[in-house]
Order: sequence, then C-alpha cells, then structure tokens
Amino acid sequence: MAETAFVIEPGRQDIVMVRHFDAPPDVVFRVVTDPELIPRWWGPHVLATRVDRMEVRPGGRWRFVNIDAHGREYGFCGVYHDVVAPERFVRTWEFEGMPGEVALETVTLAAAGGGTRYTAQSVHQSVEARDAVVRGDAARGGTEAMDRLAALLADR
Amino acid sequence: MAETAFVIEPGRQDIVMVRHFDAPPDVVFRVVTDPELIPRWWGPHVLATRVDRMEVRPGGRWRFVNIDAHGREYGFCGVYHDVVAPERFVRTWEFEGMPGEVALETVTLAAAGGGTRYTAQSVHQSVEARDAVVRGDAARGGTEAMDRLAALLADR
Repeated sequence: MAETAFVIEPGRQDIVMVRHFDAPPDVVFRVVTDPELIPRWWGPHVLATRVDRMEVRPGGRWRFVNIDAHGREYGFCGVYHDVVAPERFVRTWEFEGMPGEVALETVTLAAAGGGTRYTAQSVHQSVEARDAVVRGDAARGGTEAMDRLAALLADR
Repeated sequence: MAETAFVIEPGRQDIVMVRHFDAPPDVVFRVVTDPELIPRWWGPHVLATRVDRMEVRPGGRWRFVNIDAHGREYGFCGVYHDVVAPERFVRTWEFEGMPGEVALETVTLAAAGGGTRYTAQSVHQSVEARDAVVRGDAARGGTEAMDRLAALLADR
C-alpha cells in the first residue's frame, strides 16, 4: 500500500499531507466530495462518522460528526471557499470543541503516475494551534483516512 | 491619530494588523460589517470600492471590487466562516488576479482602553504567498483603510 507523507516543519503554521492513489483525479474527486461515502473513509478508523451537512459549492457549509464507542460526539464544521472539479477545493475547518480556532484546508488533486497525487494542506491561525493538532495525532488519523480512502477506491 | 501596528515575522505565513479605535466594539463591529459603509473605508484611499456582495453570516459570500482612476477593476472575494457579533468574524479571502491563492482572515474586536482593539490576522497557504502580499504594500493599504475607518467612526 502507498504511504502517506507529511510535511510538518517547526515554526510553520501548516500541515501538508500527500498520498498517491491509483485512480484518476476525476474519480478521486467524485469520491471525496460524495457525502454518502464520507462515513466509509473520513477520520480515524475507530470512530464512526455522520455527515450532517455537506454542500460542495462556494459558500456551502459542511458538518461532520465523529462518534466514539460510548456514543460521544465530536463535531467538525466549516464552509467551502471554492470547488474546482476535479482539481481542487478549499474550505474552512473548525473542531467544535475549540470554537474560534479555524484552519484553511486546500485539497489538490493532480494527475501523476497514472493515478492521482492527493495533497491536503491545512494552515492554522497560529503555530501553537497547528502544533496542538499535531500533538492530537493528526498524522495517525490522516493516515488511517487515506488508507481507508485507498481501499474504497480500489473497490470501485 | 492612533497608529496601525503590524506583526510580519520572517518565515511565518501570516500578517497581523492591530489598531485602536475610540469607539466601543459593538459600534466598530456594526460599521465594519455594513455593506453601505465599506466604500468609505475599505482598501487604499486612491482606489474606489464597490460592494457586489456581502452576506455577513456563516456560508455567506462577499465580493468587493477596487477600481482605479482608469476604470480598471480588481476583484476580491470569499466566504464567511463565522460571525460572532460584536467580537469576531472569520472569512476567506482571494484576490481574483491570483486564483487559487486563498487566505483566512480573522478579525477580532476586544474592549480596550475605553475603545476597541481591532486585530485582523491573515494567514496564507505559504510563506511565499504571504511575502508576495507584503511586497504588494499590504501594510500601506491596511494603514490607509484603518485611518479612513477611524475617521468614519469619529464622524458618527
């Protein structure tokens, strides 16, 4: 299975995650923007995911809820800034447990090696907020999501 | 007149602009979120500003156009992530001349010294994009806008 690479430099405000998928960009784009499929790949694999809202268009809002084994809910929400199929979308991102801390996520899909190079960059309001996300094991959660997305794409 | 301060550190991805206004936060918030008043203070003073759209709510879109003496237009647009009157709004920001380069702007109003400490932080996708904005004289444009906003507030 391909590896998920991270660029997390000290003192910077962003996290960059890169993954190769064997499917072409239009297929990857369709899958990652499909609300029905989000529960099958988004977030750490030990949590369930519910999509409350996912309006994939400029100004559209999204809200996903992670649910743990005890039924506790962790909400995430934001708005789409732009959606340029099949190459890019940009959206804001907020964990509702930390209200007011907002990140800007840019997802870019580029044709590469017969498949897709998927790059997700999240830029945070401060280095401290970025570092807190890193300490929260964002890399493990991201890697798990990418592995599940790869499996979902391979199934299609 | 109060001074506008900037924090622009090498290697970081953000620009922070801070200004004191004599008016209280609720008044400053009302003024800066009023589409009718935007042309009176937003942007460099040698340019005119037209508000095409300004929906101040989560998921709301905005588009402002700067117009120079020759009638050339420079569009800026984005979406509001959240709006928490009178203390904060967070929105995305894109200069249409550089499509795909998006910044996240957080404007915070805090009661201070009988007036308001206004902080506008813009975080960019890269240090390079941030530096390009700095080279584009963002500090002068920001300072002019803050001076015009102070004058508008003093008039009320």
